[in-house]
Amino acid sequence: MVQQYEISLPPFSRGYHPITRLIEEKLGSLPDAGLVNLFLRHTSAAITINENADPDVPRDLAYATDKLVPDNDPGYIHTIEGSDDMPAHVKSSLISVSLTIPVTRKKLNLGTWQGIFLCEFRNRGGSRKITVTVYS
Amino acid sequence: MVQQYEISLPPFSRGYHPITRLIEEKLGSLPDAGLVNLFLRHTSAAITINENADPDVPRDLAYATDKLVPDNDPGYIHTIEGSDDMPAHVKSSLISVSLTIPVTRKKLNLGTWQGIFLCEFRNRGGSRKITVTVYS
Amino acid sequence: MVQQYEISLPPFSRGYHPITRLIEEKLGSLPDAGLVNLFLRHTSAAITINENADPDVPRDLAYATDKLVPDNDPGYIHTIEGSDDMPAHVKSSLISVSLTIPVTRKKLNLGTWQGIFLCEFRNRGGSRKITVTVYS
Repeated sequence: MVQQYEISLPPFSRGYHPITRLIEEKLGSLPDAGLVNLFLRHTSAAITINENADPDVPRDLAYATDKLVPDNDPGYIHTIEGSDDMPAHVKSSLISVSLTIPVTRKKLNLGTWQGIFLCEFRNRGGSRKITVTVYS
Repeated sequence: MVQQYEISLPPFSRGYHPITRLIEEKLGSLPDAGLVNLFLRHTSAAITINENADPDVPRDLAYATDKLVPDNDPGYIHTIEGSDDMPAHVKSSLISVSLTIPVTRKKLNLGTWQGIFLCEFRNRGGSRKITVTVYS
Repeated sequence: MVQQYEISLPPFSRGYHPITRLIEEKLGSLPDAGLVNLFLRHTSAAITINENADPDVPRDLAYATDKLVPDNDPGYIHTIEGSDDMPAHVKSSLISVSLTIPVTRKKLNLGTWQGIFLCEFRNRGGSRKITVTVYS
Protein backbone atom coordinates (compact mmCIF):
# COMPACT_ATOMS: atom_id res chain seq x y z
CA MET A 1 0.00 0.00 0.00
CA VAL A 2 1.29 3.45 -0.96
CA GLN A 3 0.38 6.84 0.52
CA GLN A 4 1.85 9.93 -1.08
CA TYR A 5 1.60 13.66 -0.43
CA GLU A 6 3.55 16.90 -0.52
CA ILE A 7 4.81 18.94 2.43
CA SER A 8 5.68 22.65 2.11
CA LEU A 9 8.32 23.75 4.58
CA PRO A 10 8.48 27.31 5.91
CA PRO A 11 11.37 29.37 4.49
CA PHE A 12 14.59 28.71 6.41
CA SER A 13 17.77 30.78 6.62
CA ARG A 14 21.00 29.36 5.23
CA GLY A 15 22.05 26.46 7.48
CA TYR A 16 20.92 23.07 8.81
CA HIS A 17 17.47 23.03 10.43
CA PRO A 18 15.80 20.24 12.43
CA ILE A 19 12.52 19.18 10.76
CA THR A 20 11.77 15.82 12.43
CA ARG A 21 8.82 17.14 14.45
CA LEU A 22 7.42 19.07 11.50
CA ILE A 23 7.61 15.93 9.29
CA GLU A 24 6.06 13.71 12.00
CA GLU A 25 3.15 16.13 12.43
CA LYS A 26 2.43 16.02 8.70
CA LEU A 27 2.69 12.23 8.43
CA GLY A 28 -0.70 10.60 8.74
CA SER A 29 -1.19 7.26 10.42
CA LEU A 30 1.90 5.13 9.76
CA PRO A 31 1.99 1.35 9.19
CA ASP A 32 3.29 -1.25 11.66
CA ALA A 33 6.30 -1.83 9.40
CA GLY A 34 7.35 0.00 6.26
CA LEU A 35 9.45 2.77 4.80
CA VAL A 36 9.05 6.51 4.32
CA ASN A 37 10.85 8.21 1.43
CA LEU A 38 11.39 11.96 1.68
CA PHE A 39 12.19 13.54 -1.68
CA LEU A 40 13.18 17.22 -1.75
CA ARG A 41 12.05 18.82 -5.02
CA HIS A 42 14.97 21.28 -5.26
CA THR A 43 18.57 21.43 -6.46
CA SER A 44 20.17 23.90 -4.03
CA ALA A 45 19.16 22.29 -0.72
CA ALA A 46 19.31 18.75 0.72
CA ILE A 47 17.94 16.47 3.46
CA THR A 48 20.13 14.62 5.92
CA ILE A 49 20.08 12.76 9.22
CA ASN A 50 22.40 13.81 12.02
CA GLU A 51 22.66 14.46 15.75
CA ASN A 52 19.55 16.12 17.10
CA ALA A 53 20.72 16.94 20.65
CA ASP A 54 23.30 19.77 20.63
CA PRO A 55 22.39 22.73 18.34
CA ASP A 56 26.12 23.28 17.81
CA VAL A 57 26.13 20.13 15.62
CA PRO A 58 23.93 21.54 12.80
CA ARG A 59 25.87 24.83 13.12
CA ASP A 60 29.18 22.96 12.69
CA LEU A 61 27.75 20.83 9.84
CA ALA A 62 26.93 24.05 7.95
CA TYR A 63 30.39 25.43 8.74
CA ALA A 64 32.07 22.23 7.50
CA THR A 65 30.14 21.92 4.23
CA ASP A 66 30.55 25.65 3.50
CA LYS A 67 34.29 25.23 4.07
CA LEU A 68 34.44 22.15 1.79
CA VAL A 69 32.55 23.95 -1.00
CA PRO A 70 33.19 27.67 -0.52
CA ASP A 71 31.26 30.49 -2.17
CA ASN A 72 33.05 32.58 -4.79
CA ASP A 73 35.21 29.80 -6.23
CA PRO A 74 36.74 31.52 -9.29
CA GLY A 75 36.51 28.25 -11.28
CA TYR A 76 32.70 28.33 -11.56
CA ILE A 77 31.06 29.33 -14.85
CA HIS A 78 27.45 29.21 -13.58
CA THR A 79 27.54 32.41 -11.50
CA ILE A 80 24.56 34.38 -12.84
CA GLU A 81 22.23 33.34 -9.98
CA GLY A 82 24.61 34.58 -7.27
CA SER A 83 27.76 33.49 -5.45
CA ASP A 84 25.78 31.07 -3.23
CA ASP A 85 24.02 29.26 -6.12
CA MET A 86 26.61 26.95 -7.68
CA PRO A 87 28.10 25.90 -4.29
CA ALA A 88 24.51 25.10 -3.21
CA HIS A 89 24.14 22.76 -6.22
CA VAL A 90 27.40 21.00 -5.31
CA LYS A 91 26.41 20.52 -1.67
CA SER A 92 22.95 19.29 -2.75
CA SER A 93 24.58 16.46 -4.74
CA LEU A 94 27.04 15.64 -1.93
CA ILE A 95 24.31 15.37 0.75
CA SER A 96 21.40 14.18 -1.48
CA VAL A 97 17.73 15.09 -1.87
CA SER A 98 16.27 11.60 -1.32
CA LEU A 99 16.18 9.93 2.10
CA THR A 100 14.54 6.61 3.03
CA ILE A 101 13.72 5.92 6.71
CA PRO A 102 12.22 2.76 8.24
CA VAL A 103 8.83 2.83 9.95
CA THR A 104 8.39 0.48 12.92
CA ARG A 105 5.34 0.20 15.19
CA LYS A 106 3.69 3.18 13.45
CA LYS A 107 6.65 5.54 14.03
CA LEU A 108 9.73 6.77 12.16
CA ASN A 109 12.36 4.39 13.50
CA LEU A 110 15.23 6.82 14.07
CA GLY A 111 18.16 6.04 16.37
CA THR A 112 18.30 7.72 19.79
CA TRP A 113 20.37 10.70 18.62
CA GLN A 114 19.09 10.96 15.06
CA GLY A 115 16.99 13.78 13.67
CA ILE A 116 16.07 14.88 10.14
CA PHE A 117 17.55 18.17 8.93
CA LEU A 118 16.78 20.43 6.01
CA CYS A 119 20.09 21.71 4.64
CA GLU A 120 19.36 25.15 3.18
CA PHE A 121 22.35 26.13 1.05
CA ARG A 122 20.97 29.34 -0.47
CA ASN A 123 21.04 32.70 1.34
CA ARG A 124 17.33 33.09 0.54
CA GLY A 125 16.02 29.69 -0.51
CA GLY A 126 12.36 30.38 0.20
CA SER A 127 9.81 27.64 0.93
CA ARG A 128 10.97 24.10 0.02
CA LYS A 129 8.71 21.20 -0.94
CA ILE A 130 9.12 17.53 0.00
CA THR A 131 7.22 14.67 -1.65
CA VAL A 132 6.52 12.04 1.03
CA THR A 133 5.89 8.42 -0.01
CA VAL A 134 4.88 5.89 2.65
CA TYR A 135 5.12 2.17 1.89
CA SER A 136 3.59 -0.64 3.94
CA MET B 1 3.85 -4.96 -7.07
CA VAL B 2 7.48 -4.94 -8.22
CA GLN B 3 8.89 -4.51 -11.71
CA GLN B 4 12.62 -4.85 -12.19
CA TYR B 5 14.98 -4.61 -15.15
CA GLU B 6 18.43 -3.49 -16.19
CA ILE B 7 19.37 -0.48 -18.33
CA SER B 8 22.70 -0.26 -20.17
CA LEU B 9 23.86 3.32 -20.68
CA PRO B 10 26.02 4.35 -23.63
CA PRO B 11 29.66 5.09 -22.72
CA PHE B 12 30.04 8.65 -21.45
CA SER B 13 33.14 10.83 -21.19
CA ARG B 14 34.36 11.91 -17.76
CA GLY B 15 31.82 14.38 -16.34
CA TYR B 16 28.15 14.74 -15.35
CA HIS B 17 25.65 13.72 -18.05
CA PRO B 18 21.86 14.24 -18.08
CA ILE B 19 20.06 10.85 -18.36
CA THR B 20 16.48 11.71 -17.35
CA ARG B 21 15.07 11.31 -20.87
CA LEU B 22 17.01 8.10 -21.46
CA ILE B 23 15.70 6.63 -18.17
CA GLU B 24 12.12 7.74 -18.89
CA GLU B 25 12.20 6.12 -22.32
CA LYS B 26 13.32 2.81 -20.81
CA LEU B 27 10.75 2.87 -17.98
CA GLY B 28 7.65 0.96 -18.91
CA SER B 29 4.19 1.99 -17.79
CA LEU B 30 4.53 3.55 -14.32
CA PRO B 31 2.02 3.28 -11.45
CA ASP B 32 -0.28 6.06 -10.21
CA ALA B 33 1.81 6.31 -7.05
CA GLY B 34 5.03 4.57 -6.13
CA LEU B 35 8.79 4.76 -6.10
CA VAL B 36 11.56 4.04 -8.59
CA ASN B 37 14.97 2.97 -7.30
CA LEU B 38 17.95 3.41 -9.65
CA PHE B 39 20.95 1.34 -8.60
CA LEU B 40 24.22 1.84 -10.49
CA ARG B 41 26.19 -1.42 -10.54
CA HIS B 42 29.64 0.24 -10.48
CA THR B 43 32.14 1.67 -7.98
CA SER B 44 33.78 4.48 -9.96
CA ALA B 45 30.67 6.39 -11.08
CA ALA B 46 27.52 7.66 -9.35
CA ILE B 47 23.96 8.91 -9.92
CA THR B 48 22.68 12.25 -8.70
CA ILE B 49 19.89 14.77 -9.12
CA ASN B 50 20.71 18.35 -9.94
CA GLU B 51 19.76 21.35 -12.07
CA ASN B 52 18.78 20.33 -15.57
CA ALA B 53 18.51 23.76 -17.23
CA ASP B 54 21.95 25.34 -17.70
CA PRO B 55 24.65 22.94 -19.05
CA ASP B 56 27.23 24.95 -17.09
CA VAL B 57 25.81 23.37 -13.91
CA PRO B 58 26.91 19.77 -14.66
CA ARG B 59 30.22 21.17 -15.93
CA ASP B 60 30.73 23.05 -12.65
CA LEU B 61 29.61 20.03 -10.61
CA ALA B 62 32.36 17.97 -12.26
CA TYR B 63 34.85 20.78 -11.69
CA ALA B 64 33.89 21.02 -7.99
CA THR B 65 34.02 17.29 -7.22
CA ASP B 66 37.32 16.90 -9.13
CA LYS B 67 38.71 19.77 -7.07
CA LEU B 68 37.48 18.23 -3.80
CA VAL B 69 39.00 14.84 -4.64
CA PRO B 70 41.89 15.52 -7.03
CA ASP B 71 43.67 12.95 -9.19
CA ASN B 72 47.26 12.06 -8.28
CA ASP B 73 46.94 12.44 -4.51
CA PRO B 74 50.29 11.07 -3.31
CA GLY B 75 48.60 9.50 -0.25
CA TYR B 76 46.78 6.81 -2.27
CA ILE B 77 48.06 3.22 -2.21
CA HIS B 78 45.55 1.82 -4.77
CA THR B 79 47.08 3.38 -7.89
CA ILE B 80 47.57 0.37 -10.19
CA GLU B 81 44.39 1.06 -12.21
CA GLY B 82 45.38 4.64 -13.07
CA SER B 83 45.46 8.08 -11.49
CA ASP B 84 41.70 8.54 -12.07
CA ASP B 85 40.64 5.27 -10.39
CA MET B 86 40.94 5.82 -6.64
CA PRO B 87 39.51 9.40 -6.79
CA ALA B 88 36.60 7.89 -8.78
CA HIS B 89 35.93 5.43 -5.92
CA VAL B 90 35.95 8.28 -3.38
CA LYS B 91 33.53 10.41 -5.43
CA SER B 92 31.27 7.37 -5.97
CA SER B 93 30.86 7.00 -2.19
CA LEU B 94 30.36 10.75 -1.69
CA ILE B 95 27.60 11.03 -4.32
CA SER B 96 26.13 7.47 -4.03
CA VAL B 97 25.07 4.76 -6.48
CA SER B 98 21.48 4.32 -5.21
CA LEU B 99 18.76 6.89 -5.85
CA THR B 100 15.05 6.62 -4.98
CA ILE B 101 12.57 8.89 -6.81
CA PRO B 102 8.79 9.15 -6.27
CA VAL B 103 6.35 8.27 -9.06
CA THR B 104 3.13 10.29 -9.18
CA ARG B 105 0.37 10.03 -11.79
CA LYS B 106 2.45 7.57 -13.84
CA LYS B 107 5.51 9.88 -14.08
CA LEU B 108 8.81 10.43 -12.30
CA ASN B 109 7.85 13.21 -9.90
CA LEU B 110 10.91 15.45 -10.24
CA GLY B 111 10.89 19.12 -9.24
CA THR B 112 10.79 21.78 -11.97
CA TRP B 113 14.56 22.15 -12.25
CA GLN B 114 15.57 18.60 -11.36
CA GLY B 115 17.16 16.12 -13.72
CA ILE B 116 18.98 12.81 -13.22
CA PHE B 117 22.71 12.76 -14.00
CA LEU B 118 25.21 9.97 -14.49
CA CYS B 119 28.47 11.07 -12.85
CA GLU B 120 31.25 9.39 -14.82
CA PHE B 121 34.43 9.71 -12.77
CA ARG B 122 36.74 7.55 -14.93
CA ASN B 123 38.49 8.89 -18.04
CA ARG B 124 37.20 5.85 -19.96
CA GLY B 125 34.44 4.30 -17.89
CA GLY B 126 32.73 2.43 -20.70
CA SER B 127 29.06 1.41 -20.64
CA ARG B 128 27.44 1.56 -17.18
CA LYS B 129 24.50 -0.55 -16.02
CA ILE B 130 21.59 0.51 -13.80
CA THR B 131 19.17 -1.89 -12.11
CA VAL B 132 15.74 -0.25 -12.06
CA THR B 133 13.16 -1.36 -9.46
CA VAL B 134 9.63 0.08 -9.66
CA TYR B 135 7.32 -0.24 -6.65
CA SER B 136 3.57 0.38 -6.64
CA MET C 1 5.15 -7.72 1.87
CA VAL C 2 7.53 -6.22 4.43
CA GLN C 3 10.07 -7.96 6.65
CA GLN C 4 11.97 -5.89 9.17
CA TYR C 5 14.62 -6.61 11.78
CA GLU C 6 17.70 -5.17 13.46
CA ILE C 7 21.32 -6.28 13.02
CA SER C 8 24.00 -5.51 15.63
CA LEU C 9 27.46 -5.24 14.12
CA PRO C 10 30.60 -6.11 16.08
CA PRO C 11 32.65 -3.06 17.15
CA PHE C 12 34.96 -1.94 14.34
CA SER C 13 38.09 0.22 14.46
CA ARG C 14 38.08 3.59 12.71
CA GLY C 15 38.00 2.94 8.95
CA TYR C 16 35.92 1.29 6.19
CA HIS C 17 35.00 -2.35 6.82
CA PRO C 18 33.42 -4.86 4.40
CA ILE C 19 30.09 -6.14 5.82
CA THR C 20 28.44 -7.73 2.77
CA ARG C 21 28.88 -11.31 4.00
CA LEU C 22 27.76 -10.42 7.53
CA ILE C 23 24.61 -8.72 6.15
CA GLU C 24 23.86 -11.62 3.77
CA GLU C 25 24.14 -14.14 6.62
CA LYS C 26 21.63 -12.18 8.70
CA LEU C 27 19.14 -11.70 5.84
CA GLY C 28 16.50 -14.38 5.89
CA SER C 29 14.99 -15.78 2.71
CA LEU C 30 14.88 -12.99 0.13
CA PRO C 31 12.15 -12.43 -2.49
CA ASP C 32 12.49 -13.06 -6.23
CA ALA C 33 12.44 -9.31 -6.84
CA GLY C 34 12.45 -6.49 -4.32
CA LEU C 35 14.54 -4.00 -2.40
CA VAL C 36 16.48 -4.08 0.84
CA ASN C 37 16.93 -0.85 2.82
CA LEU C 38 19.80 -0.71 5.31
CA PHE C 39 19.39 2.09 7.84
CA LEU C 40 22.26 2.77 10.25
CA ARG C 41 20.89 4.09 13.56
CA HIS C 42 23.89 6.35 14.32
CA THR C 43 25.20 9.83 13.50
CA SER C 44 28.98 9.33 13.51
CA ALA C 45 29.24 6.40 11.07
CA ALA C 46 27.82 5.64 7.61
CA ILE C 47 27.12 2.85 5.10
CA THR C 48 28.42 2.86 1.55
CA ILE C 49 29.01 0.66 -1.47
CA ASN C 50 32.45 0.49 -3.04
CA GLU C 51 35.07 -1.83 -4.50
CA ASN C 52 35.27 -5.09 -2.61
CA ALA C 53 38.38 -6.63 -4.23
CA ASP C 54 41.55 -4.78 -3.17
CA PRO C 55 41.73 -3.99 0.60
CA ASP C 56 43.74 -0.88 -0.30
CA VAL C 57 40.49 0.67 -1.61
CA PRO C 58 38.71 0.90 1.80
CA ARG C 59 42.02 2.03 3.31
CA ASP C 60 42.30 4.82 0.71
CA LEU C 61 38.60 5.73 1.11
CA ALA C 62 39.22 6.31 4.83
CA TYR C 63 42.35 8.30 4.04
CA ALA C 64 40.48 10.47 1.51
CA THR C 65 37.46 11.24 3.70
CA ASP C 66 39.68 11.94 6.73
CA LYS C 67 41.68 14.34 4.56
CA LEU C 68 38.50 16.05 3.27
CA VAL C 69 37.14 16.49 6.80
CA PRO C 70 40.15 16.54 9.14
CA ASP C 71 40.09 16.13 12.91
CA ASN C 72 40.93 19.17 15.03
CA ASP C 73 39.44 21.82 12.74
CA PRO C 74 39.67 24.95 14.90
CA GLY C 75 36.34 26.20 13.51
CA TYR C 76 34.24 23.56 15.32
CA ILE C 77 32.22 24.52 18.40
CA HIS C 78 30.95 20.99 19.22
CA THR C 79 34.23 19.58 20.57
CA ILE C 80 33.23 18.22 23.98
CA GLU C 81 32.92 14.60 22.75
CA GLY C 82 36.47 14.52 21.34
CA SER C 83 38.38 15.66 18.29
CA ASP C 84 37.01 12.76 16.18
CA ASP C 85 33.32 13.43 16.98
CA MET C 86 32.32 16.48 14.91
CA PRO C 87 34.28 15.32 11.80
CA ALA C 88 32.48 11.96 12.19
CA HIS C 89 29.10 13.76 12.05
CA VAL C 90 30.16 15.63 8.90
CA LYS C 91 31.34 12.45 7.14
CA SER C 92 28.15 10.65 8.20
CA SER C 93 26.05 13.25 6.35
CA LEU C 94 28.36 13.23 3.30
CA ILE C 95 28.24 9.41 2.91
CA SER C 96 24.70 8.78 4.34
CA VAL C 97 23.18 6.29 6.79
CA SER C 98 20.45 4.93 4.47
CA LEU C 99 21.20 2.61 1.55
CA THR C 100 18.70 0.87 -0.74
CA ILE C 101 19.86 -2.19 -2.74
CA PRO C 102 17.87 -4.26 -5.27
CA VAL C 103 17.09 -7.93 -4.64
CA THR C 104 16.98 -10.17 -7.71
CA ARG C 105 16.43 -13.95 -7.76
CA LYS C 106 16.57 -14.08 -3.94
CA LYS C 107 19.96 -12.34 -3.68
CA LEU C 108 21.35 -8.83 -3.12
CA ASN C 109 21.90 -7.72 -6.71
CA LEU C 110 25.29 -6.04 -6.35
CA GLY C 111 27.60 -5.39 -9.31
CA THR C 112 30.66 -7.61 -9.79
CA TRP C 113 33.02 -5.37 -7.83
CA GLN C 114 30.56 -3.94 -5.33
CA GLY C 115 30.53 -4.64 -1.61
CA ILE C 116 28.81 -2.99 1.36
CA PHE C 117 31.05 -1.16 3.84
CA LEU C 118 30.49 0.17 7.33
CA CYS C 119 32.30 3.51 7.59
CA GLU C 120 33.34 3.86 11.22
CA PHE C 121 34.37 7.48 11.75
CA ARG C 122 34.89 7.39 15.55
CA ASN C 123 38.11 6.13 17.14
CA ARG C 124 36.00 3.90 19.42
CA GLY C 125 32.53 3.73 17.92
CA GLY C 126 31.43 0.51 19.64
CA SER C 127 28.75 -1.78 18.24
CA ARG C 128 26.56 -0.22 15.54
CA LYS C 129 22.96 -1.18 14.75
CA ILE C 130 21.30 -1.41 11.33
CA THR C 131 17.54 -1.64 10.77
CA VAL C 132 16.95 -3.88 7.74
CA THR C 133 13.70 -3.56 5.78
CA VAL C 134 12.99 -6.04 2.96
CA TYR C 135 10.27 -5.26 0.43
CA SER C 136 8.79 -7.69 -2.07
